[in-house]
Amino acid sequence: MSLILTFLGKGGTGRTTVAIATAKRYASEGKRVLLVGQAPDPNLGVLLGNALTADPQEIASNLQAVQLQSAALLERSWEEVKKLEAQYLRTPILKAVFGQELGVLPGMDSALALNALREYDASGQYDVIVYDGSGDQSTLRMLGMPEVLSWYVRRFRKVFTDSDLGRTILESPFIQPLVGTVLNVSWSPDNWAQPTNQVSNILDDGRAAVTNPHRVAAYLVTTADPAAIATARYLWGSAQQIGLTVGGVILNQAMVSQAVAQTVTTEFDPLKINAFPVRTGDDWQPLVDALPDFSQADQAPRAIAVNVAERKVALFLPGFDKKQVKLSQNGPEITIEAGDQRRNISLPPELSGKPVTGAKFQDGYLIISF
Amino acid sequence: MSLILTFLGKGGTGRTTVAIATAKRYASEGKRVLLVGQAPDPNLGVLLGNALTADPQEIASNLQAVQLQSAALLERSWEEVKKLEAQYLRTPILKAVFGQELGVLPGMDSALALNALREYDASGQYDVIVYDGSGDQSTLRMLGMPEVLSWYVRRFRKVFTDSDLGRTILESPFIQPLVGTVLNVSWSPDNWAQPTNQVSNILDDGRAAVTNPHRVAAYLVTTADPAAIATARYLWGSAQQIGLTVGGVILNQAMVSQAVAQTVTTEFDPLKINAFPVRTGDDWQPLVDALPDFSQADQAPRAIAVNVAERKVALFLPGFDKKQVKLSQNGPEITIEAGDQRRNISLPPELSGKPVTGAKFQDGYLIISF
Repeated sequence: MSLILTFLGKGGTGRTTVAIATAKRYASEGKRVLLVGQAPDPNLGVLLGNALTADPQEIASNLQAVQLQSAALLERSWEEVKKLEAQYLRTPILKAVFGQELGVLPGMDSALALNALREYDASGQYDVIVYDGSGDQSTLRMLGMPEVLSWYVRRFRKVFTDSDLGRTILESPFIQPLVGTVLNVSWSPDNWAQPTNQVSNILDDGRAAVTNPHRVAAYLVTTADPAAIATARYLWGSAQQIGLTVGGVILNQAMVSQAVAQTVTTEFDPLKINAFPVRTGDDWQPLVDALPDFSQADQAPRAIAVNVAERKVALFLPGFDKKQVKLSQNGPEITIEAGDQRRNISLPPELSGKPVTGAKFQDGYLIISF
Repeated sequence: MSLILTFLGKGGTGRTTVAIATAKRYASEGKRVLLVGQAPDPNLGVLLGNALTADPQEIASNLQAVQLQSAALLERSWEEVKKLEAQYLRTPILKAVFGQELGVLPGMDSALALNALREYDASGQYDVIVYDGSGDQSTLRMLGMPEVLSWYVRRFRKVFTDSDLGRTILESPFIQPLVGTVLNVSWSPDNWAQPTNQVSNILDDGRAAVTNPHRVAAYLVTTADPAAIATARYLWGSAQQIGLTVGGVILNQAMVSQAVAQTVTTEFDPLKINAFPVRTGDDWQPLVDALPDFSQADQAPRAIAVNVAERKVALFLPGFDKKQVKLSQNGPEITIEAGDQRRNISLPPELSGKPVTGAKFQDGYLIISF
């Protein structure tokens, strides 16, 4: 298992530079590092001075780099699915569709990237994986996928198994290959029916990793530009909606006045702010030295805290005001809408199904009473 | 019908500023303008000095603005789907799933945004729609969706109707509601079976619009920074893969030397370069005045030219070198892979099914002979 680090912030604030410095630091400490970029973005390759490839290659001691290419990943998964289909079905129906023909639809980039990260993580070859993605809402959608998808699986499995039509479809060997293509799991007729199936396990493992700051943590990158600060604050709050820990703030191009530094500190309280210098030439050392201590990510506020004794749930939602947060209750779950994402929260047995008796928004926390 | 304009480029190059200036220019010319932002990005609101809403609101004379919110759009579509399901099925299976609970999965942002643009376009209320999206590969995935999805529909319809299982699934009233949720079309059992069905029409209309520079055009935004130039070149080439016309280049923060201006001109030849000044205070006029004449987008090279007499197809693929482009042929179609996207090209009857006899890469064009 690896520590997965990623950086969130407005484009142009230097996220990729920070990602490279982070990879260099861990490599210099003797950790085995994988730096992961996304194919559409030539920026990482330009800054590294290396042409990146679709499979990891060593670019320095302890440091490998890879550029995820959705078209190639999709082709690979599809051929696996066809192989499995041929095993399970006497007359496979997908054999006439060639992997090299499959176009990339919206969402596939994220699903394929998440799956690639999962496989690199599980390979045991890397101590640290630095993911230099788009650093915006797309990255959050990607990391939130196990949480959101497991809700869909949970909810729709119930809806389906309650209906004849649903059962017919779930037992068909069709839905599973499609899911298999993006999640790259082998499937069997049991996969959806059994609670301990492989898809659910992968989603549960994914959720557990994303919400554990010793496994996955994000840091905000911003300059003193108000639009960059607003974006970073928005992503900070939105990250809580998927349970992702934001460990701190990297204030780039830190030649700022005392007043500006104070503003930034206030905007991101209680996160620690690290000033990060402008890069000059090929000397990365001052940048490496300015990075935060990522092992302290667990000191940052956690997304959710449940207090059964006081019948209270506290959700950390910084960067939003009261009007931007909506709370609703349907059956045993409560739903929080903020940051253009919904979080369906399963409550512990003691609180599950109990009506909400009050909610208040205080110091960045939404506190719900039952 | 509206003219839809969007801007592609690295984050931080000023795409949103250019989008606002464009909206202001058309509004000042008496055109009815809608400026469309994406909810995760507070930047547009910060620059406009307006808090944007999920429905269009007038922010100046002739100028409306809206910020698309996926969670809200998803809820709206889902309720429509449930209504339709209840009409078609005696025992609707989705009635127990509340729209307010649906989380946003990767890809939904793009699908919902494209659908919203389609509806604003069809409303007849706007002469010009300026879309301030993420301006990167995600925007291309979104605009490429009609092209890519219509290939999936074409191909998988054939695969399915050739198999018993497939027919059962296609005739089930399940696949259609899911497609309906993101594309927001009403459906009937005929929709997929008939060649002239509503889904196909929407996809065909979408493809026709995206490839027509009088309907949809993109402009590149870059600074003189090499990473920004590399990103803009990559997006330029990638846009051709979905048939989107790139009308020109906006060179932001144009206080650059003659030498740099020359470099930029060479990198983007034959596109026209417009220098764009730095914004100072609230005076937008110098920015508005510096914008290109967007009606000239049709002067830029088109993505594909077929010459039946010479048995040649020329694909414009700027920004790539020969090694980054792959050509393959499966049955009647040829597939081009470049920019992490595949384009499946349907050939005219005279060339369809003929073997490729040669291919060369010249001056940014891939020329294929049959």
